[in-house]
Amino acid sequence: MAVYTEVTDDELAPLIADYGLGELLSYKGIAEGVENTNFLVHTTQGTFILTLYERRVDPADLPFFLGLLEHLNKGGISCPLPVRNRKGEVLSTVAGRTAAVVTFLEGVWPRRPRPTHCAAVGRALAELHLAGESFAMVRENALGLSGWHALYERFASRADEIAPGLSTLISYELAYLDRAWPKGLPTGVIHADLFPDNVFFIGDTLSGLIDFYFACNDAWAYDLAICLNAWCFEPDCSFNATKGRALLAAYQSLRPLTAAERQAFPVLARGAALRFLVTRAHDWLHTDRNALVKPHDPNAYVRRLRFHQEVEQASEYGLERIS
Amino acid sequence: MAVYTEVTDDELAPLIADYGLGELLSYKGIAEGVENTNFLVHTTQGTFILTLYERRVDPADLPFFLGLLEHLNKGGISCPLPVRNRKGEVLSTVAGRTAAVVTFLEGVWPRRPRPTHCAAVGRALAELHLAGESFAMVRENALGLSGWHALYERFASRADEIAPGLSTLISYELAYLDRAWPKGLPTGVIHADLFPDNVFFIGDTLSGLIDFYFACNDAWAYDLAICLNAWCFEPDCSFNATKGRALLAAYQSLRPLTAAERQAFPVLARGAALRFLVTRAHDWLHTDRNALVKPHDPNAYVRRLRFHQEVEQASEYGLERIS
Repeated sequence: MAVYTEVTDDELAPLIADYGLGELLSYKGIAEGVENTNFLVHTTQGTFILTLYERRVDPADLPFFLGLLEHLNKGGISCPLPVRNRKGEVLSTVAGRTAAVVTFLEGVWPRRPRPTHCAAVGRALAELHLAGESFAMVRENALGLSGWHALYERFASRADEIAPGLSTLISYELAYLDRAWPKGLPTGVIHADLFPDNVFFIGDTLSGLIDFYFACNDAWAYDLAICLNAWCFEPDCSFNATKGRALLAAYQSLRPLTAAERQAFPVLARGAALRFLVTRAHDWLHTDRNALVKPHDPNAYVRRLRFHQEVEQASEYGLERIS
Repeated sequence: MAVYTEVTDDELAPLIADYGLGELLSYKGIAEGVENTNFLVHTTQGTFILTLYERRVDPADLPFFLGLLEHLNKGGISCPLPVRNRKGEVLSTVAGRTAAVVTFLEGVWPRRPRPTHCAAVGRALAELHLAGESFAMVRENALGLSGWHALYERFASRADEIAPGLSTLISYELAYLDRAWPKGLPTGVIHADLFPDNVFFIGDTLSGLIDFYFACNDAWAYDLAICLNAWCFEPDCSFNATKGRALLAAYQSLRPLTAAERQAFPVLARGAALRFLVTRAHDWLHTDRNALVKPHDPNAYVRRLRFHQEVEQASEYGLERIS
């Protein structure tokens, strides 16, 4: 939650005009977005989000992210739609930053997800996967297995500062995943970060998905495993099997998993837990204490990983064969 | 700019219902407000601001602040209107904080005020003073002359850490103001903090005034002197006489200053500069380096004070007799 870059009214008003959005009525820096600076903008044409891309986003990836949002909108997915300026471009420069304007999605993210939320997100994830099938661009997953290795090497010597034995746990798990990581599963565009704060609801109805800045091409079932980690564990890190069943059944109602995906699911769940464990552990050790954004506690993902290590078959997640 | 207190969707949805504002559509913590936590809230009834009062606001003052907003709205001033809940009350409790919901004002505050902005704020200040005349409640100015003394005593021994000679400057000025501070000037409700970030414009038209949390009863002309300090100096701390003339003439077009106010104006301008100098100097020395809110530089008000010390008569501000 941070506004890293200030924008003046003299800079913004002409930008809004250039995007054909009428007259600027108000704009407020919002306390959301770990990576970028976001402003909620009211104009005579409606409500929009202005995003200024800060250092952690590679500008070379922006055409993929923004093109994907356009593609998914066309495919009926409720997600931010980039606005094109008078030149037909989505990207501008504001306050020395590359910037985009997207439509604002109403909705509230659920702080305490219930099984109905999990079912809704399972269904939305399947819709996202299917709508992304026809998207032509490709982006490699920078945070896949080799990325986890690379990231871990940057903090391996200090991992035990976070929790005793953490370096042993991560080394063991990486070696296991090197052997066990499945190949040949169905792949496509994945969101890769569909946590509760990226899924909006109005009342009990899912109203939209946001924050596609980790989207890439990878195994669809891995994306589902990320959601399982993000949505189906309680604050005390216990697994809620009712939520797991709701998420997985709703996903499969639109796209049933293949036998190979089902069999691989426990490994995918371990990989998904490790992915967030290594990024959180890295950020935990490398975030300045004075930083505007407080890092997430890696231990929540240590506990998830240990849970998954004990799982022997997919049915323990509530994943039964559908049909 | 900070969100000090998080609010969950489960807490907010019933609150919005209790205020009769329809269904909650979205809410975003906004990076505004030094003292409080503010959320921009969209509901099916419109846009509102939810404010959670943090420690620096005395709850005993809230009936004055919120009652004043209601009164000023009735008097035609464009400022946030507190919403009353089903019990007819404006205050609630959310996330352990006293909270209020007010209407949202569209508008953008001018980062680089021009003379036309200064004229608009001069006129709005006069309208505010006149509309406040019939407000029955009274709040003493805690940051008047005796308050400046008290605050200065808390950092006098460290003042020269900010700038060499600062303790001498402040001590000299306080002694001068003790002798010269005018008595018997016309008083009423004053805003007391009408800086550019508290005045909204849509295009060139003033759309509203916000942040009444320093409002109190004091000399009207002192409020005008605060605005002169806040609006009519350039970033290099030079006085812009064109802006001064625009502010003062527009104010006087609605409420001409009395002879006593005109004569006292240079002293009031010194007092207004000292008021922000002592609060900024205090905050500069007492703000934790890790604080979410960065303190303002006191030196901008050292430079203003030194300017006012050289002024001999009100005409140097562009303040001519109107009649």
